[in-house]
Amino acid sequence: MNTVGRLTIAGLGPGAAELVTPEVAEALAQASDIVGYGPYVDRVPARPGLTLHASDNRVELDRSRLALDLAAQGRDVVVVSSGDPGVFAMAAAVFEALEAGDPAWRTLDIRVLPGVTAMLAAAARVGAPLGHDFCAINLSDNLKPWELVERRLRLAAQADFAMALYNPSSRSRPWQFARTLEILREEKGAETVIVFARSVSQPQETIAVSTLAEARPEQADMRTLVIVGSSTTRLIVRQNAPPIVYTPRRCDGGAG
Amino acid sequence: MNTVGRLTIAGLGPGAAELVTPEVAEALAQASDIVGYGPYVDRVPARPGLTLHASDNRVELDRSRLALDLAAQGRDVVVVSSGDPGVFAMAAAVFEALEAGDPAWRTLDIRVLPGVTAMLAAAARVGAPLGHDFCAINLSDNLKPWELVERRLRLAAQADFAMALYNPSSRSRPWQFARTLEILREEKGAETVIVFARSVSQPQETIAVSTLAEARPEQADMRTLVIVGSSTTRLIVRQNAPPIVYTPRRCDGGAG
Repeated sequence: MNTVGRLTIAGLGPGAAELVTPEVAEALAQASDIVGYGPYVDRVPARPGLTLHASDNRVELDRSRLALDLAAQGRDVVVVSSGDPGVFAMAAAVFEALEAGDPAWRTLDIRVLPGVTAMLAAAARVGAPLGHDFCAINLSDNLKPWELVERRLRLAAQADFAMALYNPSSRSRPWQFARTLEILREEKGAETVIVFARSVSQPQETIAVSTLAEARPEQADMRTLVIVGSSTTRLIVRQNAPPIVYTPRRCDGGAG
Repeated sequence: MNTVGRLTIAGLGPGAAELVTPEVAEALAQASDIVGYGPYVDRVPARPGLTLHASDNRVELDRSRLALDLAAQGRDVVVVSSGDPGVFAMAAAVFEALEAGDPAWRTLDIRVLPGVTAMLAAAARVGAPLGHDFCAINLSDNLKPWELVERRLRLAAQADFAMALYNPSSRSRPWQFARTLEILREEKGAETVIVFARSVSQPQETIAVSTLAEARPEQADMRTLVIVGSSTTRLIVRQNAPPIVYTPRRCDGGAG
């Protein structure tokens, strides 16, 4: 353990152990303390000398301050995120806490270790829907006005980006994804491909491929990553296997 | 080896072995044939029973047809990509070849294994610049009209997305990145953060953090991933360490 303390913000990937990078596995093996949301901390095997600090959802700043404080005490701390820590996950929260907190925290050894974020794992399961230009939008309006989400959805449709939509729905946000589908139907063709990828790489994984015309709001929950195709996204139909969804590299630019 | 053949399209990550997922390492260990662009095939250790098929850049469809043909002969083929195979890499090319090719290819066992794409590795090196909504744009106009790139850059700026810009420059595309900087300066504030991340995770890695006002076209080449901040992207200045670049989770929605 470093005497000056170290803080590592690590991505565990979407769930399966075989998607955890060796770099992250090594950081977990070296750590004195693991800090994170309970279900993610549960993915780290207990061992002597390792202290697990599991916390509830939606207390990201408290969790970040705990991690920074432990590192400042000389501990070797790993903050764990699902997916990639820099994509709608813990890295930004830690840096918010760092910037607003004890100036001494700025002298800590801090590093971010990337991971396989949900959209990449989901895209891989169906083919290559993000094979051309795309965007990633967090549909949660907990930390931004819903009007901004709507504006970004419309501009992204006009740019003809494929879209990865994170956090489409939860108990506290019951209507937002239904509204998202309405906006996408106004801006994009009814036959646009939409993919619902739930709990990718975990035992309960489910994948559904549909169209904007047929998609229903209840197909997305808090464990679902939604991918919406661009105007060029295609299906390859196969016998005895699900269709392949992909967006060709070539685009003539007519759509938008 | 499967008697019916298998095709795996695998992401090797940005370069370092510790960023290759165990799933991909296992696929490489099982393969009979590796197909890919020479420098990526060079990352796979030779061993008895493994045939390496290295090809030049910009022959993605030929390479894809070779891989599909080998799999159809009953081989266990891995097509290797840098980063994630679904992000501006080989997966879309393989599916283009599959759709246009021998109908028997559709019965092959085909899978895509995700990887750490360049923008995630680059973002992790500087902090969390992609911590809020963002987009990924391939600046190459080899397969799409340059007008479409310009249109997407402007709409992405209006949506106030952070941006990951892939393939900013090459010998055959000498002026496009200079034009990109002009467009971004028209659409975004002069103090907008821009990050040039070259050869991330490789021995020759270099990272430069600048502003749109000060950025120069020659800071990007074919090995560079460029990240452009949103209006809310911030720097945390540190003594004796590079600044941290991050985009807070919260956004009040005024910009764009």
